[in-house]
Amino acid sequence: MFEVIGERINTSRKNVQEAVVKRDAQYIVDDVQQQQAAGASFIDVNAGARIGHETEDMKWLIETIQPIATIPLSLDSPDPAVLEMAFQMVEKTPMINSISLEKERFEAMIPFLKGKACKIIALCMDDQGMPGSSDDIVQRAETLVKELNAIGIENSSIYIDPLVQPISVESTKGIMVLDAVRGIKAKYPDVHITGGLSNISYGLPQRKIINRTFIALMMDAGMDSAIIDPLDEKIMATVKTADMLLGRDAFCGNFLKGVRAGAILG
Amino acid sequence: MFEVIGERINTSRKNVQEAVVKRDAQYIVDDVQQQQAAGASFIDVNAGARIGHETEDMKWLIETIQPIATIPLSLDSPDPAVLEMAFQMVEKTPMINSISLEKERFEAMIPFLKGKACKIIALCMDDQGMPGSSDDIVQRAETLVKELNAIGIENSSIYIDPLVQPISVESTKGIMVLDAVRGIKAKYPDVHITGGLSNISYGLPQRKIINRTFIALMMDAGMDSAIIDPLDEKIMATVKTADMLLGRDAFCGNFLKGVRAGAILG
Repeated sequence: MFEVIGERINTSRKNVQEAVVKRDAQYIVDDVQQQQAAGASFIDVNAGARIGHETEDMKWLIETIQPIATIPLSLDSPDPAVLEMAFQMVEKTPMINSISLEKERFEAMIPFLKGKACKIIALCMDDQGMPGSSDDIVQRAETLVKELNAIGIENSSIYIDPLVQPISVESTKGIMVLDAVRGIKAKYPDVHITGGLSNISYGLPQRKIINRTFIALMMDAGMDSAIIDPLDEKIMATVKTADMLLGRDAFCGNFLKGVRAGAILG
Repeated sequence: MFEVIGERINTSRKNVQEAVVKRDAQYIVDDVQQQQAAGASFIDVNAGARIGHETEDMKWLIETIQPIATIPLSLDSPDPAVLEMAFQMVEKTPMINSISLEKERFEAMIPFLKGKACKIIALCMDDQGMPGSSDDIVQRAETLVKELNAIGIENSSIYIDPLVQPISVESTKGIMVLDAVRGIKAKYPDVHITGGLSNISYGLPQRKIINRTFIALMMDAGMDSAIIDPLDEKIMATVKTADMLLGRDAFCGNFLKGVRAGAILG
């Protein structure tokens, strides 16, 4: 089943930041419950936008969300101290968002992750920046998998983010990442592929049809998770439709459930 | 570039049949001009619905369409005598729709096709019926390619229709045809893949999102042509978007042209 990591609880979003500043728990609870009802598999929690307040904001957000969470959280921070605090607070095995091959981030994250029961998003980013080719993405993914395996994290807990880049910059950026996903899945069938999609349409008009069409192509290539807004009905409808078309929805059950709920329109 | 075979001029459509019965040339001309403006690469012409009138209806349709056609016609009939007449009337190298491996159709079509300058839609259908597996589709395509090569039709003039089957019947019907398309393209990179898409959603509600999502997946697998309604703006928008995402639209030119024309909405 495709796993949606719900991206909405992020203090860089104006309404969420306002709710966090006012300690408006009901706003956060409502949002999380809507994401859960829409079919999210994880709730991402990012409290990074208010400089100097990340620890207290993250603590309050988890205290607020934990009692009503029916699914695990994705703890989204570059700061191991914040992640350690958050990790102690959660009840279900969390996702950690994220490690990368950037030296500073990598060296901070490895000791934090060692011996922990968690899933981990691993970005194909290093100190040279974004990957420049399919092979480059696959090689970075290999390095991440090997390093994470070495500290006891097994492949089925690793979610590689190949880093989608804008097609407006270069018309091969779509096939570059599609080929890379196929390459990673061929090597590591149990490793998950995740990431944001919206970068693909950066700089172009009518972005939603681009993001939506691209997620279907990425799912065909092997992406089995994405960091998206579960309340975006059109992208969720495409995810359910593509899942069915790719043979992952026995008797079209989830698709038909979505249609009956009014969430999938032709 | 993806080639759309515009399916609208078919006497099984009520309005088209009415226009044909009344010899309402303006209706037909308007429809064809709209299909051309929407980006069709061929205009399919099917006069088969009025039993006993196919020859005269086909003749009138081609006489009506020929003077305003800026693109080639796809001559759609199982009857070699009708096709021979139509073939003599057209000015641009036509598509012939279609040959199959059904004994009667095959034996009628081969002598007609021999030595002709035309493109040909070749259905993976035989006297046992629809194909039952990916391998079966690929094998039928191989037989068609070899038989057509033997009468002088080269691969770049062959449009294989792998025959899309309903996912409501069996949840593997999507991946079966996607795998087959990849198999055919791996063996014959110059052979085109075409066909209707709407069978995929037969028996399900909200069919358009299924057809639209499936065409993007089929394009990724190697489908480079389809028999669809060029006036269906949503499916055409998906075709242009997928073409861009698959690296076939330099500088996003066609996509941006579609957006400016108001034909692509997010």
